[in-house]
Amino acid sequence: MSSSTASNTTNGRHLFKEYPTGFPTPGQSTVYDTSASIDLDHVPLNGGVLTKLKVLSIDPYLRELMNPNLGTSPDFVPFALNEPIQGHGIVEVLRSENDKFKSGDFLHADVIPHEEYPLFSKEATETLSIVEKRPELPLSVYVGAARMPGWTAFAGWKEYAKAKTGETVFVSSGAGAVGSIVVQLAKHQGLKVISSAGSEDKVQFLKDLGVDVAFNYKTSDTREVLKKEGPVDIYWDHVGGDTLDAALENMNQYGRIVLCGMITGYNTESGDVPTQKLYTAVWRQLSLHGLLIVPALIEKYQSSFEEEVVAKLADGTFKYREDKRYGLEEASQAMLDVQKGSNVGKCVVVVDGE
Amino acid sequence: MSSSTASNTTNGRHLFKEYPTGFPTPGQSTVYDTSASIDLDHVPLNGGVLTKLKVLSIDPYLRELMNPNLGTSPDFVPFALNEPIQGHGIVEVLRSENDKFKSGDFLHADVIPHEEYPLFSKEATETLSIVEKRPELPLSVYVGAARMPGWTAFAGWKEYAKAKTGETVFVSSGAGAVGSIVVQLAKHQGLKVISSAGSEDKVQFLKDLGVDVAFNYKTSDTREVLKKEGPVDIYWDHVGGDTLDAALENMNQYGRIVLCGMITGYNTESGDVPTQKLYTAVWRQLSLHGLLIVPALIEKYQSSFEEEVVAKLADGTFKYREDKRYGLEEASQAMLDVQKGSNVGKCVVVVDGE
Repeated sequence: MSSSTASNTTNGRHLFKEYPTGFPTPGQSTVYDTSASIDLDHVPLNGGVLTKLKVLSIDPYLRELMNPNLGTSPDFVPFALNEPIQGHGIVEVLRSENDKFKSGDFLHADVIPHEEYPLFSKEATETLSIVEKRPELPLSVYVGAARMPGWTAFAGWKEYAKAKTGETVFVSSGAGAVGSIVVQLAKHQGLKVISSAGSEDKVQFLKDLGVDVAFNYKTSDTREVLKKEGPVDIYWDHVGGDTLDAALENMNQYGRIVLCGMITGYNTESGDVPTQKLYTAVWRQLSLHGLLIVPALIEKYQSSFEEEVVAKLADGTFKYREDKRYGLEEASQAMLDVQKGSNVGKCVVVVDGE
Repeated sequence: MSSSTASNTTNGRHLFKEYPTGFPTPGQSTVYDTSASIDLDHVPLNGGVLTKLKVLSIDPYLRELMNPNLGTSPDFVPFALNEPIQGHGIVEVLRSENDKFKSGDFLHADVIPHEEYPLFSKEATETLSIVEKRPELPLSVYVGAARMPGWTAFAGWKEYAKAKTGETVFVSSGAGAVGSIVVQLAKHQGLKVISSAGSEDKVQFLKDLGVDVAFNYKTSDTREVLKKEGPVDIYWDHVGGDTLDAALENMNQYGRIVLCGMITGYNTESGDVPTQKLYTAVWRQLSLHGLLIVPALIEKYQSSFEEEVVAKLADGTFKYREDKRYGLEEASQAMLDVQKGSNVGKCVVVVDGE
């Protein structure tokens, strides 16, 4: 008994403790907890894989999974109270009873519990895949531009934007993990790109990405900018609400709108996102498409993604920017920062390593 | 001078007099006016066609064209003050300087001034086409189920609904001119059809059309009905607002929504139509499509429309219901009734004849 206790290692966890009604409060909505421990050498694997958490991706959608009233997708399940937050990340194999994975491998996990030593059951190992890392790119990019946010941007752009050279696109939150890839795909395809962000620093980043009209929505009126620079053929929405209305008022005939999250509603009690101008969709024959990155979309675009996005990130054609935090205890604050938009670049929590 | 005056005929007109802020008021927003006259025998045609108005179509969208703030489509222009209302209808040729049309021909006009003797200029005659009337159908059906509302239903259904046998569709205003064709197309294709209307009489009509779940939205709660009978794969929307929200809350994954007018907003000052639940579109990967019947869509589906809709109307497979008014002086009241939904069946104004 005493010998097994002696070999136990603290397994720090990032737990969901309380449904937030507004912004998630570090230490209250979610808590870093050190009460659990794990015997790394002896814990039974039952055909599964024991891992060490390396990098976590901190994305806006995590807040939406704290909404108990969310109409869920079969691919996304709201968080359970007193259980670890779940999100995507990269782990390193410590011990494995699965032939495909060996100690030292880096693995992607799209649904990974926020704990230092995740143990994947035999069934759960089917969701794991080896990180095919290019030497030019750090591991953290494989939870960002080279993985889920990148996939979301690329698959949504290919599937729904139906972009033509010479058209005009407006991207809200263009400096974000998804938005920054969207604006680069659009520039690469010869579109006029209008994009907004919430700080001068982010606006400068948009300019560095080649955005034609970059503006700070806190100091410039979105309606005025779109009226002057539009009409807009494609609107890539991350926020909903009044920004969506401003876009709806300035859309061109047959415009396409990609609804890629609505952060405006995430931090309210009801989750509602009031929109007033949807009637313009009728008169201008607009299409709106809800975008969630799901396995079917990933499969459809995965091979071209490697060539059209990851290769361009590796050779420097496409840029990325990261906001790295160190240690799982920083995950709560990182989640709040992402909701408030005070992160600068793709937010990742490096739990172990670089 | 006196001889030409003697041959003048009163040309009754239905004029747009004032922007309504709520429902259009007969005698105030629009006025039947008899101050104009026309010399039918001598008015110069300059290559055009002089006609006599036979039948007018009275549709919900006419109210939207009284909104001066409407973001217009190049295919639809808001009405000008002190000019006749314009809408679609059928005219009979009195005199013609166009070889394609001769006296006695019945012609379709999609944009026709509401006056008893419309004179089409040489350019405007290009928008006219001869009514290819089947003997089984009255002329009035050629402004209803066999024409624009029928086209709208058919083209929208083919282009955007992407219906599959066994799916569930919800159609609001299912007893209306467009809705009644949509529900019959859906039944014909083997879908489960849920549809709402605003009176017991209309609900009975829906049942006569074969609707599986017909309900009166004034006495039944739309959310409850959809929760019990859904989830909904396709929602055909005519109203927007809270009905759209109720549908959004009950949509299935990958659901399609056809936005075919938003009457909720037509009779308000701003024209805004508040929607709260659009965020569900993200999590359920919904698509929404604004539908306006435009030349490109008509051209794409016109030949199959004859076979799949008009032939079925003629042989009795598809049903239609008309609310006929007689005389151009009834157009104002007819327009108000359509906005309030107090018409029963497709509303037409028969200006001359059957």
